[in-house]
Amino acid sequence: MKLHILGCHSATPRSTVFPSSQILELGNELLLIDAGEGMQIQLRKYKHKFNKIKHIFISHLHGDHFFGLVGFLSTLRLIGREKEIHIYAPVGLKQIIELQFKMTQTDINYPLHFHELSSASSEQILDAGKFEVSTIPLEHRIYTNGFLIKEKPALRKLNIEAVKQFPEIETWAYHHLKQGKDFVKEDGSIIPNDRLTLPPPKAKSYAYCSDTMYKPDIIPLIKDVDLLYHEATFLEQDKDLAGKTKHSTAKQAAQIAREAGAKKLVLGHFSSRYPDETLFAKEAGEIFTNVAIAKEGKSFEA
Amino acid sequence: MKLHILGCHSATPRSTVFPSSQILELGNELLLIDAGEGMQIQLRKYKHKFNKIKHIFISHLHGDHFFGLVGFLSTLRLIGREKEIHIYAPVGLKQIIELQFKMTQTDINYPLHFHELSSASSEQILDAGKFEVSTIPLEHRIYTNGFLIKEKPALRKLNIEAVKQFPEIETWAYHHLKQGKDFVKEDGSIIPNDRLTLPPPKAKSYAYCSDTMYKPDIIPLIKDVDLLYHEATFLEQDKDLAGKTKHSTAKQAAQIAREAGAKKLVLGHFSSRYPDETLFAKEAGEIFTNVAIAKEGKSFEA
Repeated sequence: MKLHILGCHSATPRSTVFPSSQILELGNELLLIDAGEGMQIQLRKYKHKFNKIKHIFISHLHGDHFFGLVGFLSTLRLIGREKEIHIYAPVGLKQIIELQFKMTQTDINYPLHFHELSSASSEQILDAGKFEVSTIPLEHRIYTNGFLIKEKPALRKLNIEAVKQFPEIETWAYHHLKQGKDFVKEDGSIIPNDRLTLPPPKAKSYAYCSDTMYKPDIIPLIKDVDLLYHEATFLEQDKDLAGKTKHSTAKQAAQIAREAGAKKLVLGHFSSRYPDETLFAKEAGEIFTNVAIAKEGKSFEA
Repeated sequence: MKLHILGCHSATPRSTVFPSSQILELGNELLLIDAGEGMQIQLRKYKHKFNKIKHIFISHLHGDHFFGLVGFLSTLRLIGREKEIHIYAPVGLKQIIELQFKMTQTDINYPLHFHELSSASSEQILDAGKFEVSTIPLEHRIYTNGFLIKEKPALRKLNIEAVKQFPEIETWAYHHLKQGKDFVKEDGSIIPNDRLTLPPPKAKSYAYCSDTMYKPDIIPLIKDVDLLYHEATFLEQDKDLAGKTKHSTAKQAAQIAREAGAKKLVLGHFSSRYPDETLFAKEAGEIFTNVAIAKEGKSFEA
């Protein structure tokens, strides 16, 4: 599980600085989270394959989180997309996108499914077999969700050397072993699973929390998350402004990370008023040790 | 009168290549013509002042000509715009923009006026005192207008040396002289205007024709234009494709320029299928001598 930043700044795109958009890489699948203007430029720049994207998650209907979506969907049509796309977004985005397709006389030639979100409580919105996604209700000036993406535990790995010591274990049994079952011999005796298999890689989790004011009631939802991206639009010196605009400070983001027991915190959604983004890391670092600063083109392993 | 290219490629934005958007500089005013995605990034990159833009012209409702508009209008709000904005665009764009403002709960804090276009004939859409703008009906897959921008003749310039030889010409008369009037002395005799003033700089004109198939009936409208930007999505080798998609080839654009007696032709809206854009100049150059290739960041004097 790897997070790739396409854009992590608030408000407007500039030459090298883009509004919110990121890719979560899960094996061969890329999840697109938010889609600020110019997102498709960044996707090309960092060589993410458009074709690996099937699920798109939009946190809220502020332009810096979705103005790049309609262009991306249009480009998919132009390049001959056939596979379906699923969009998980607040009620309203479907109408915005469909109106533009209508006015531009665009026939989308791939199945496009909108999953409109309006619940105030956390809900599971996707079970994709190897991972699942649920919403994290956030508190912003407009209806907003974060997203929690959790890998499901993978199958155990066969310890081939160990298995070969038991000729009575035939290949049909391997699948059961991978699922963690013991092997039962014909005489009823048992070979314990942990003698035959190795544990799978740990299932990882990622939480995206942007945009939001300080909202400690999300902590149980993101408890022990491996990687947490939390917005830090402001520094603590502008705490009042953060409260007024329903954004967070770097310190508040770090408090959430600490209380949730997150393994790593990535800060983003910086206001352009601060010339030096290391200030965010410094402020958060006083509360929580494992802090990183998002930047266009940077990647973070969960 | 100076044309600045922000984007001149068809279809989708890439790292250094942007869809249609350009600035026509007229003294202290910047006219924005088309607004492909990422246009505001380009405006910043080439240091055009947002505040000098008051009139925006959108040729047609294909995404590569307007997907950057809503983000630009939102940014104007963020940076505290107060002056009015006028948008001249086909019917439908107003609905698209207003729906997005509604869904994003955006209160635009400056006067925003839409002038919806639907006429199949050329019409004057703006008389701004120093210049005027009229539509050039084009032929594309969707309702499309080009735009003809004509400076109005400026006032004649006082020839101060000459004027000073006649003490009877007081300053109150200067304005009349600039307007081309002769000076009438008290005894009824006349000092001809051309002894007292110099001709003004020639009023220039610019025609933007994109997107369109070869449409020779626009020639009378753009007769003797100083600067013509004409789309050349394809080369002549792909003439059939140009016809099918209602675009032009470089040769066809040159034919329009030649027949119209344009002073200079700038080609743009290139398809990404051609690796070398000098091919467009070469093809057009066989028909018309003064050909230039548009490129992001380039400027052309009318």
